[in-house]
Amino acid sequence: MARKAGIIGGGVIGGGWAARFLLNGWDVAVYDPDPEAPRKVGEVLANARASLPALSDGPLPTEGKLSFVSSVSEAVQGAHYIQESVGERLDLKHRVLAQIQQAAPLETPIGSSTSGFKPSQLQENAANPGVIFVAHPFNPVYLLPLAEVVPSPRSTPAVIDAAKEILREIGMFPLHVRKEIDAHIADRFLEAVWREALWLVKDGIATTEEIDEAIRMGFGLRWGQMGLFETYRVAGGEAGMKHFMAQFGPCLQWPWTKLTDVPEFTDELVDLIAGQSDAQSGHYTIRELERIRDRNLIGFLRVLKERNWGAGMVLLEHDARRRAALPEPVVGEGPMDCARMTVLPGWIDYNGHMTESRYLFAASETSDAFLRHIGADIAYVGTGFSYYTAETHIMHLGEAKLGDALTGTVQVIHADEKRLHIFIRILKEGAAVATLEQMLLHVDMAAGKACAAPENILARLVPIAKAHAELPRPEAAGRHVGQRK
Amino acid sequence: MARKAGIIGGGVIGGGWAARFLLNGWDVAVYDPDPEAPRKVGEVLANARASLPALSDGPLPTEGKLSFVSSVSEAVQGAHYIQESVGERLDLKHRVLAQIQQAAPLETPIGSSTSGFKPSQLQENAANPGVIFVAHPFNPVYLLPLAEVVPSPRSTPAVIDAAKEILREIGMFPLHVRKEIDAHIADRFLEAVWREALWLVKDGIATTEEIDEAIRMGFGLRWGQMGLFETYRVAGGEAGMKHFMAQFGPCLQWPWTKLTDVPEFTDELVDLIAGQSDAQSGHYTIRELERIRDRNLIGFLRVLKERNWGAGMVLLEHDARRRAALPEPVVGEGPMDCARMTVLPGWIDYNGHMTESRYLFAASETSDAFLRHIGADIAYVGTGFSYYTAETHIMHLGEAKLGDALTGTVQVIHADEKRLHIFIRILKEGAAVATLEQMLLHVDMAAGKACAAPENILARLVPIAKAHAELPRPEAAGRHVGQRK
Repeated sequence: MARKAGIIGGGVIGGGWAARFLLNGWDVAVYDPDPEAPRKVGEVLANARASLPALSDGPLPTEGKLSFVSSVSEAVQGAHYIQESVGERLDLKHRVLAQIQQAAPLETPIGSSTSGFKPSQLQENAANPGVIFVAHPFNPVYLLPLAEVVPSPRSTPAVIDAAKEILREIGMFPLHVRKEIDAHIADRFLEAVWREALWLVKDGIATTEEIDEAIRMGFGLRWGQMGLFETYRVAGGEAGMKHFMAQFGPCLQWPWTKLTDVPEFTDELVDLIAGQSDAQSGHYTIRELERIRDRNLIGFLRVLKERNWGAGMVLLEHDARRRAALPEPVVGEGPMDCARMTVLPGWIDYNGHMTESRYLFAASETSDAFLRHIGADIAYVGTGFSYYTAETHIMHLGEAKLGDALTGTVQVIHADEKRLHIFIRILKEGAAVATLEQMLLHVDMAAGKACAAPENILARLVPIAKAHAELPRPEAAGRHVGQRK
Repeated sequence: MARKAGIIGGGVIGGGWAARFLLNGWDVAVYDPDPEAPRKVGEVLANARASLPALSDGPLPTEGKLSFVSSVSEAVQGAHYIQESVGERLDLKHRVLAQIQQAAPLETPIGSSTSGFKPSQLQENAANPGVIFVAHPFNPVYLLPLAEVVPSPRSTPAVIDAAKEILREIGMFPLHVRKEIDAHIADRFLEAVWREALWLVKDGIATTEEIDEAIRMGFGLRWGQMGLFETYRVAGGEAGMKHFMAQFGPCLQWPWTKLTDVPEFTDELVDLIAGQSDAQSGHYTIRELERIRDRNLIGFLRVLKERNWGAGMVLLEHDARRRAALPEPVVGEGPMDCARMTVLPGWIDYNGHMTESRYLFAASETSDAFLRHIGADIAYVGTGFSYYTAETHIMHLGEAKLGDALTGTVQVIHADEKRLHIFIRILKEGAAVATLEQMLLHVDMAAGKACAAPENILARLVPIAKAHAELPRPEAAGRHVGQRK
């Protein structure tokens, strides 16, 4: 049975939490007194549905059930995890936390999305302070992995561990902040940059647009994959971190930032910035900007996933976690069901259709899964042997579009020691959008020529080939391009 | 004839400038008294050669000639652009700039890579102050587009314009900083974050690794594509920028950052940070980290390029600039030479070989270029008609690896009103690594069925088909999978 998350506060952040839990198979109960909350959460959820699946390379769990409830206690009763995302006022948070603790199960972790308050502040006067902690996420919550998890000395370590495990399960990266501090870690940087940016605009040095360009054309790209210190370590070159620090340490004493004062937050400054921001981005609606941002983030995250680096490692671990729970493909009555895929944004062309080469990509995913099943996996390739595709014939029979769920099946037409002749169907709702006939050869990669596959692989392959010999031969097998039916 | 860039200072930054100019077809003369400079510049250039071409979707210009010279005057004589990247000391920069101006052409722009000095400081006592300005790049200079261009009131506007045009030509994004200020724009943010990070490490709140995770798992990803203000505009949701500012404005007065003081830069602090950085990243060499960083950045930049967003727009404009200078494919004696491609990092598998589906991708690039040539381009598809691939036969004949230059050719086997039967060769050094036989149908997309192509397309297609009818029929045409030779 699906577990339940109680979400208190249904704004951009609460909605993001709701979406992340739902798309990871949790039931979610949202409480927010705002009558607009269902619409707002619905819009965040629509964005999440359009993007989060693109980060996964396996089937998603069935989406959980979303309900909007009319009280805090209804939202948190029987919940396995509770997240508070109400306004940034300590008195309000105290009141909501007290309401939560009147109805929540005693051991259920209660995370707060607070940007700045310390957990010990949140715990003041609480009935059960040990389960209250900070779980500070970053917008969009359904895509960015970071959650700063901040306990206080009064927090129960087992509850914090359980909370971190839950956050990992929903694909997040819980960063354990060992000493509580105002604004945790990330927001201290955001605040320092924000203050400096306000000065630059106020003093007429740069517009909001120029400041954004100064970030995204340069160091922003670096920080998305290495952060601050590792970037500087590389910049230090061979001489390393000490050299870098010796070079730039003295600058701290130079007038490179506004150190000693805070710009006065006047209406004029607000108007100046809001006006510049309109000029910069006003030709897009917020919804459009959200979709642009999400597509960009998916792209970045998939790049990192391909490279098993940074946030991409989180995605790979999340896939592995899910895959461990999936059944292996089994030899059954018909062709083998080897791969489940979703048509991702990077797979479609300017027409919104799956681009031609992605049909072959989907077939490769399918045959790779088949090869893993017979023991010709990455570890086997590491020993210097592999199956290479020598020849392929593709029939394009239908169209796949963004978000379509595809299944790849394999039917073995013939297999001997060296040759593996297969027929792959790429199915959408049970009908083939493409079929691919392939001849693979087992090769000695160093010698660069075909050789017999080893016993252990043949022992797995031959029974499948025998079972499949009973299947009707696909009509398109043996066909050449342009052949009449 | 290639133009000449004079590069003074051959460290990581000077080497990056040299690489960017060379790979964009400029000759480069480097002066650096360090006898190690040729090796150091060589290593930066090797990194650049392994990565910069992956950002381009057209053929690169022929690489320029690199020379190491023994004096400043030799480096700058006859130069069309000069860049100074010596150490961050004003007296040293004054001395070098004076030497440059003794030998440089009078109108040649002289950019300085200074992180912090204002152009008016650099111009002090200069013979020809109007041509001196700041061109502040970001490491790695060969990949990141940003160059902060900062003139002073004494700068000659025409020289600044010429410099910006040159920077665009070598694929950069010149951000014109309208008012000079210490540390320009981006480094003011870097300095604010650096100071805050030093405090966090010094106070034992977080390690260098935790700080990097706090950045790259969250806001770093956002900043790589939108920067600060546009990100916050989206975060403000429907209520917009003013709402966001009202919500977070008051925080400026809260103790979220260390406002009033600078951490003392003691040996202990340096040791603490260097030690933590070793623990975090010491299992990689700097060279390895550079390659990891470059691959990640290429991935991010290509994502943005696919989406025509931010830094990706700079890349697309750079491609368009180059493409405008290339000849159209012409009908000649043999198959038509339609596409030139480079095997990109995203095209290779864990073995370093071009992944199977990318052969079909390369063929699509080739057939797309052919279709554009006969008038079936994106604008035509916008009218509701297109050529769809119905069937493909692929022969895998060789292997392409990262960085290989590929050529795609098209031979028309048969063409009539509805059908287009083509044979594509993907060539590496003149030999086919794959051949693809394809049947394309001209379709009415709304009706979802084949229909006759219009006169203007047939008028371009038929003469090619007639010319190609004289060519020998490819051996692999008409072949089915597994057919004996």
